[in-house]
Amino acid sequence: MIFNASQIAELVSGTVEGNTNAEVDRLSKIEEGTEGSLSFLANPKYTSFLYSTDATITLVSDSFVAEKEFKTTLIRVADPYEAFSKLLHHYNQIKQQHSSGIAETAIVSDSATIADNISIGDYVQIGANSILGEHVVLQAQAFVGNNVSIGANTVVHTGAKILDDAVIGTNCVIHSNAVIGADGFGWAPNGDGSYDKVPQTGNVILGNYVDVGANTTIDRATLGATKIGNGVKLDNLIQIGHNVEIGEHTVIAAQTGIAGSTKIGTHCQIGGQVGISGHLTIGNRVGIQAKSGILKNIKDDGKVMGYPAFDYTAFNKSYVHFRNLHTHISDLHSLKKKLDHE
Amino acid sequence: MIFNASQIAELVSGTVEGNTNAEVDRLSKIEEGTEGSLSFLANPKYTSFLYSTDATITLVSDSFVAEKEFKTTLIRVADPYEAFSKLLHHYNQIKQQHSSGIAETAIVSDSATIADNISIGDYVQIGANSILGEHVVLQAQAFVGNNVSIGANTVVHTGAKILDDAVIGTNCVIHSNAVIGADGFGWAPNGDGSYDKVPQTGNVILGNYVDVGANTTIDRATLGATKIGNGVKLDNLIQIGHNVEIGEHTVIAAQTGIAGSTKIGTHCQIGGQVGISGHLTIGNRVGIQAKSGILKNIKDDGKVMGYPAFDYTAFNKSYVHFRNLHTHISDLHSLKKKLDHE
Amino acid sequence: MIFNASQIAELVSGTVEGNTNAEVDRLSKIEEGTEGSLSFLANPKYTSFLYSTDATITLVSDSFVAEKEFKTTLIRVADPYEAFSKLLHHYNQIKQQHSSGIAETAIVSDSATIADNISIGDYVQIGANSILGEHVVLQAQAFVGNNVSIGANTVVHTGAKILDDAVIGTNCVIHSNAVIGADGFGWAPNGDGSYDKVPQTGNVILGNYVDVGANTTIDRATLGATKIGNGVKLDNLIQIGHNVEIGEHTVIAAQTGIAGSTKIGTHCQIGGQVGISGHLTIGNRVGIQAKSGILKNIKDDGKVMGYPAFDYTAFNKSYVHFRNLHTHISDLHSLKKKLDHE
Repeated sequence: MIFNASQIAELVSGTVEGNTNAEVDRLSKIEEGTEGSLSFLANPKYTSFLYSTDATITLVSDSFVAEKEFKTTLIRVADPYEAFSKLLHHYNQIKQQHSSGIAETAIVSDSATIADNISIGDYVQIGANSILGEHVVLQAQAFVGNNVSIGANTVVHTGAKILDDAVIGTNCVIHSNAVIGADGFGWAPNGDGSYDKVPQTGNVILGNYVDVGANTTIDRATLGATKIGNGVKLDNLIQIGHNVEIGEHTVIAAQTGIAGSTKIGTHCQIGGQVGISGHLTIGNRVGIQAKSGILKNIKDDGKVMGYPAFDYTAFNKSYVHFRNLHTHISDLHSLKKKLDHE
Repeated sequence: MIFNASQIAELVSGTVEGNTNAEVDRLSKIEEGTEGSLSFLANPKYTSFLYSTDATITLVSDSFVAEKEFKTTLIRVADPYEAFSKLLHHYNQIKQQHSSGIAETAIVSDSATIADNISIGDYVQIGANSILGEHVVLQAQAFVGNNVSIGANTVVHTGAKILDDAVIGTNCVIHSNAVIGADGFGWAPNGDGSYDKVPQTGNVILGNYVDVGANTTIDRATLGATKIGNGVKLDNLIQIGHNVEIGEHTVIAAQTGIAGSTKIGTHCQIGGQVGISGHLTIGNRVGIQAKSGILKNIKDDGKVMGYPAFDYTAFNKSYVHFRNLHTHISDLHSLKKKLDHE
Repeated sequence: MIFNASQIAELVSGTVEGNTNAEVDRLSKIEEGTEGSLSFLANPKYTSFLYSTDATITLVSDSFVAEKEFKTTLIRVADPYEAFSKLLHHYNQIKQQHSSGIAETAIVSDSATIADNISIGDYVQIGANSILGEHVVLQAQAFVGNNVSIGANTVVHTGAKILDDAVIGTNCVIHSNAVIGADGFGWAPNGDGSYDKVPQTGNVILGNYVDVGANTTIDRATLGATKIGNGVKLDNLIQIGHNVEIGEHTVIAAQTGIAGSTKIGTHCQIGGQVGISGHLTIGNRVGIQAKSGILKNIKDDGKVMGYPAFDYTAFNKSYVHFRNLHTHISDLHSLKKKLDHE
């Protein structure tokens, strides 16, 4: 995707000052500009970078007045930040355009129902009775099991596995090598110390606009469904146990794990590497600091930290003293000595 | 898999009360019953749900007497919980039936030895000199390297990778995108601050009835073998380092990591997100709380928590005081003041 | 790879004492020697194992004098440890030899540029405009997107995914099911509590001699590049966020996560399950203990532990007191009582 200065000026309703044929193929911050990149100057604090940037094109404000020489081609616009955002989204739309069609090497079950204008890559397999909506994209080497339903506009990246019975909403993004619908981890102990598998007969249901990060795993329910609400965003390498439910627009950072049957409310913000025990109830709008371990229910709007986690402010108060514990204990010993000698 | 009430009644030796043609295709809890699901009422505490459940069929006790109206079709049995468990296992058996045969697109080395009645999916590759036992299932896009041995009845799910020289026992389940036999993480520092790779020449050996979760990684040994004992159950996203040994029937929850050369005993229960240092010895029947970090050996029957981990009860005693540390330190300061003024 | 005693003696300039036709196909420690393995005796502490080892061949020092019977065939060399290391490296070189050629089932874009002597396995896909250097190996089921560049001698293992625009240096190893270049986790909150995706337009750049572990994920930058320096070694299941930069020869153990835009210096040693917040600067030669959580910048040569992490020695001093907190608080209460009664 190569654009020249004239084309970009047209896109952002700006005017070129410099080489109208200057070509760019990527976006950059002004302080990291390189030949062939397009940058922007919105914050006056960064003005000095304009004179040294290697960016081929820079968006600047209509009111910008240069005080030194520079080599970048300018495009003057009313609001450089807004114009840059517009280009970002334009870039993204182009990236997300997929040629529709089904690769010759894709293996699609005869009983699957496939909308006309979808894109299925090479070496993809789609199982029996699965239903794929309009504009669904399955990249190369993706796998869709039996009885799976995938809503319109959802993109499944290379190597992601959507296993039997999963229901995926519209406009979801499933990143590479994520696994949706592997068996839950349920084991019934035998008298001899060995374990029998508890059959995992449920499925996974994702709402609309859900993002699932690379190498993240979401297990199917033992009975019923593991449910991920509309607009939930899951980062990479997250583990979601069987029968977990996550409310709408909750965001979870990388490497967090949620054990079986826990219910999480809406609009929560959960940091990375958090662990949440099974069978808990986490309220709405809860904030959990990275690396915390949750062993108890949390009420709406709670903010917690630590392991076991408790109130965020209280944790930090305690931790300040923990850092100085050596001094405190020395004080204690001095007092004791003093009293013993009195 | 659709069953009607008559068929189910026959399976569980029950009698239908209602619509004998009522059809179900899944199992549910009574409080989560939906149209098309089969549920059960075993615990009297849940009786109220029977009058409101949307489950199409519900298993109830022979002695059940309704006190209100309800719409679900009943199947009366001697023991509803037992009948439901029977159906669960029946369901599971049907799920696990795989049509035997080798997909046309599977690439199997001429020197591999393959039992007659196995199932190999599309786009699978099997390397030189590998041996696959009876009823082995390799789902689509699985990979088996060279010199691998896989015992009878083992199932390798889609995208799982069994690398060179691995020995997998009978009746194992390797979930999607797990990696067995990648190189151990061994590096020899050079004088200039760079590292040389320590060749990883060993392999991975799994016993029988081992489960390996989705996206879990088990590294090959530097020399010798990384050994996972019979009946060990590993959840998703676990890391097992090179030359680790895990004793029989130990169960490990998701996202736990075990560093190189550590030996873990039999029948341990290890929580999620635990980290265990290298070159340690963990005894038999040890319990490790989730998120703990283990830096020392643990004796048989030990139960630990924290990071660095110590005795579970002692940790919790200390932690109660940590939570109130601010009050304790205030007390200490008051005492100090008092004494200084005397 | 089967070798007999004569062949090995020649490789290590040694002399056989025993059966010159004795055959081995693997390496082992002397205490774990099995039939068919080659072992070595370097440390006199291990001498007793020589008399009981099942290793078929054992390298010993020229000066070794047996005091009991043994069954292993000896190869006498000047320095047994050095000779064994030589064999290890020899073994590794053989393992790393790949037949060059492009599998018939590999799908290579017409616009990709492929050096002559590379090895591309079955069911690999290579996208448009990608460039692969000499001796590059792509194992079966690997995926290379569009506009990717991979330097000479780099090996991409089965199932690994190198997504669009990534630049991979020479002599790198990308292990199975690793994902390089998935979208960064960037979300702009809307007024209604939902989130819009921040377009992720950057890429990932790996230097030379970088190792990326199995199931590790490295996200592309929002703008610019996520950069991994020469000689960096990443273990399995690691998460590297968007726009992170890691300096040369830094080594990171399994399951560690680094949030967006953090910069890490050269020659750091970072333990497993560490979490590092976003937008931090970690100096050179920093040591971070396993499981630590980093919320602040760290200066050159810092050594930290805990969550939130602080100085390693100070943490351990505090932790000793934490373990005994119950006793300390009892002391405090006694003092208080005593003073109250005075």
